[in-house]
Amino acid sequence: MANVKAAIPKGTRDFNPQVMVKRNHIFDTIKKVFKKYGYQEIQTPTMENLDTLTGKYGDEGDQLIFKILNSGDYMLKAESLKQKGEELSSKKLLPIISEKALRYDLTVPFARYVVMHQHEITSPFKRFQIQPVWRADRPQKGRYREFYQCDADVVGSDSLLNEAEFVCIYDEALSKLGLRDFTIKINHRKILTGIAELIGKPQQIVDLTVAIDKLDKIGLDGVERELLERGFTAADLDVLRPIILLSGSNEEKLQTLERVLQNSESGQKGIAEIKTLFGYLASFTLENAKVELDLTLARGLNYYTGCIFEVKTNEVAMGSIGGGGRYDNLTGMFGKEGLTGAGISFGADRIYDVLEELNLFPAAVSESTKVLICVFGEEEQNFALPILSRLRKADISAELFPFGAKMKKQMAYANDKNIPFVVIIGSEEMQSKQLSLKNMESGEQVKVSVEELVERLGVMSN
Amino acid sequence: MANVKAAIPKGTRDFNPQVMVKRNHIFDTIKKVFKKYGYQEIQTPTMENLDTLTGKYGDEGDQLIFKILNSGDYMLKAESLKQKGEELSSKKLLPIISEKALRYDLTVPFARYVVMHQHEITSPFKRFQIQPVWRADRPQKGRYREFYQCDADVVGSDSLLNEAEFVCIYDEALSKLGLRDFTIKINHRKILTGIAELIGKPQQIVDLTVAIDKLDKIGLDGVERELLERGFTAADLDVLRPIILLSGSNEEKLQTLERVLQNSESGQKGIAEIKTLFGYLASFTLENAKVELDLTLARGLNYYTGCIFEVKTNEVAMGSIGGGGRYDNLTGMFGKEGLTGAGISFGADRIYDVLEELNLFPAAVSESTKVLICVFGEEEQNFALPILSRLRKADISAELFPFGAKMKKQMAYANDKNIPFVVIIGSEEMQSKQLSLKNMESGEQVKVSVEELVERLGVMSN
Repeated sequence: MANVKAAIPKGTRDFNPQVMVKRNHIFDTIKKVFKKYGYQEIQTPTMENLDTLTGKYGDEGDQLIFKILNSGDYMLKAESLKQKGEELSSKKLLPIISEKALRYDLTVPFARYVVMHQHEITSPFKRFQIQPVWRADRPQKGRYREFYQCDADVVGSDSLLNEAEFVCIYDEALSKLGLRDFTIKINHRKILTGIAELIGKPQQIVDLTVAIDKLDKIGLDGVERELLERGFTAADLDVLRPIILLSGSNEEKLQTLERVLQNSESGQKGIAEIKTLFGYLASFTLENAKVELDLTLARGLNYYTGCIFEVKTNEVAMGSIGGGGRYDNLTGMFGKEGLTGAGISFGADRIYDVLEELNLFPAAVSESTKVLICVFGEEEQNFALPILSRLRKADISAELFPFGAKMKKQMAYANDKNIPFVVIIGSEEMQSKQLSLKNMESGEQVKVSVEELVERLGVMSN
Repeated sequence: MANVKAAIPKGTRDFNPQVMVKRNHIFDTIKKVFKKYGYQEIQTPTMENLDTLTGKYGDEGDQLIFKILNSGDYMLKAESLKQKGEELSSKKLLPIISEKALRYDLTVPFARYVVMHQHEITSPFKRFQIQPVWRADRPQKGRYREFYQCDADVVGSDSLLNEAEFVCIYDEALSKLGLRDFTIKINHRKILTGIAELIGKPQQIVDLTVAIDKLDKIGLDGVERELLERGFTAADLDVLRPIILLSGSNEEKLQTLERVLQNSESGQKGIAEIKTLFGYLASFTLENAKVELDLTLARGLNYYTGCIFEVKTNEVAMGSIGGGGRYDNLTGMFGKEGLTGAGISFGADRIYDVLEELNLFPAAVSESTKVLICVFGEEEQNFALPILSRLRKADISAELFPFGAKMKKQMAYANDKNIPFVVIIGSEEMQSKQLSLKNMESGEQVKVSVEELVERLGVMSN
């Protein structure tokens, strides 16, 4: 067997123990909040049928789906193509040699799941799902070919209470993770539709929001110049000006919008829904989240049909750390029409970077073993084994470094693993039955009996 | 967009909420025990370079690896083959159109990880890993193309304390899961080598163990007949007879082996190691596991170099629910020679089936939400929202069924989700501020204030 270089595919990552505990801290925290709000976990297979995924993410998306080669003699099925003398191009060959592909997001598999299991699902169905997805994107800093998504969706309920609870979930989960200053931006697809109706340019709603978004940077003149360049007329600008300059509290913004959009049915519907949502939110006390109506939010506009969310931290410069919204007819692609749904997503990789930068990972998270027992020889080891057993019976995470290693190596092991306590057992300790317990952080060393040891560390484990 | 049938690839599974909580119960329990013994979690990418995996699992294994098609115009690289007019066979095309593959087990990626990260690893390195693997096996009952492995391995320590701790880990994890009668079978590669030396037939050691394994079924005559058929001589049988008939306690078996294998250096080494292991185990109190020296255990013989483990439950007819052993030079395939390691694996799918059959999943595991608030109209809903918020602030998992649904539907929802308590809020409850709290199991219904509700359910959550 020839030696192979130890390497992994570009855009993929190994997660070492230190990183894993931090990632689990994030996922566990979010999971706990999802569950508290009645969301239940599901998992779907890594591989989906290729035709389940194809055509759902646009042409570019189709290119970025990782396809799996059929197993066995996959070229057998291409025989007829070969015999006809046809050119074996990548495109022609693909449906012949590949039937499966890697999950590209969690949304399409969820839609497929809902349709496939519709008769066993309790409606409204509130599910969360935390699993990796794969995209053949060009890898770059912060963009990976394998990354986790962390989604909660509800289908079968059009109540805006769901949207209000998504705001609460963001607030609670991000607060539990230690964030203290973040904004949940909210927009509504129907308000944007109303604005587009106002000026009769429904196709250009994204141009409009992109330009408005620059108000802080380039001022009203700049925004208007840009809008003119993008094909809006002077008459459009007169109508749009109150929207471009929209500011103040959420209530003030809504008042302005009600006036401006008074003739748009869509606009009024959107405003009414946002008001209902804000009304629900008044019954819930948010811990740290600011909620802000932001018309420049045009996220996933082709997809969302109601409220749209995006979450940003104000403590670190970073893109959005979460987002979502309401969509209609998600399951239509699998033949089940008319099902409404809403969902949110946490950007776990970005949240990781934020917590790292703000130093918000609890110290205990990186602690693995509570105590390491160090011995000098076989006799000490035999003396130590029942002590090791007692510690574990008391539910204390404990290790014994097998005899034969120098003390320096054993201490380095404790340090590297962030083990907070070390017990040293030499001949003196065996005779006196008083063990040396060292606090690795303070350096303090005391003598304790086995009973005292178990009691002390047991208390600290809680 | 054409409608596509909602289906998943054969041999893969969706896990619904009820199954997920049970699977998580198993994984969480095992994880907790791994950590208690100082094992730390890592994760490796789903995709490995194809050459990392190829040649590690034998020819048959290579066939069963799922390969990933290169992204982009993968046939471009085949141009030179085409121009030379070469036959585009599956075999010739493969290295051209595929560079990556799905993880086939957790062991090879672990070896790759150890070599790749050798300078950041603290030795001995104790890692656990719980991730799915993929095999293009023919799907059948209980055999899937995607399934989770659940492994703990230590590299860089030849101490038999590691093996002893593996026995403890099996004992503790399976006991925590509720199993009360299971056997950890132990064998040693060097004892088998010693037996093979004894009769000068090292190639036939597997034939031998397979035949011995049938003793209970076909008796000594049957075993001897089978051994003769398999090419052993009458002289061999005379030597082997005490081994075939090996019985009694572990101590008695070891005494017999010591006598029979007295001239085999390997055999003596293996016996000495098993004795050391049993010595260590005497210092640990096992809860439920029986430990049994079993020479018919030939699991992974080409792979293991020291102790070999296999775990069987005695409560249900089922194959092994775990196994492992010591191996040398695992990392040699990636250019790092001479590293010793040992590891064990839990068979999560089989453990799931065992717990299901023995009804050992705790009832609380299938509970999602603690309380559902049912309302009749919008006014009741508005009255209920602050109550919902208070319950959640008290860390009680709570849901409100959005107004507009019939009580029957709401009750069915609570039933389907195994929600143990329901609060009903109608006009009477709003006036009296005394809520109706219904215990869904007993049917008992009482009136409580909001304070009492929070207190009652809070106590029950702990």
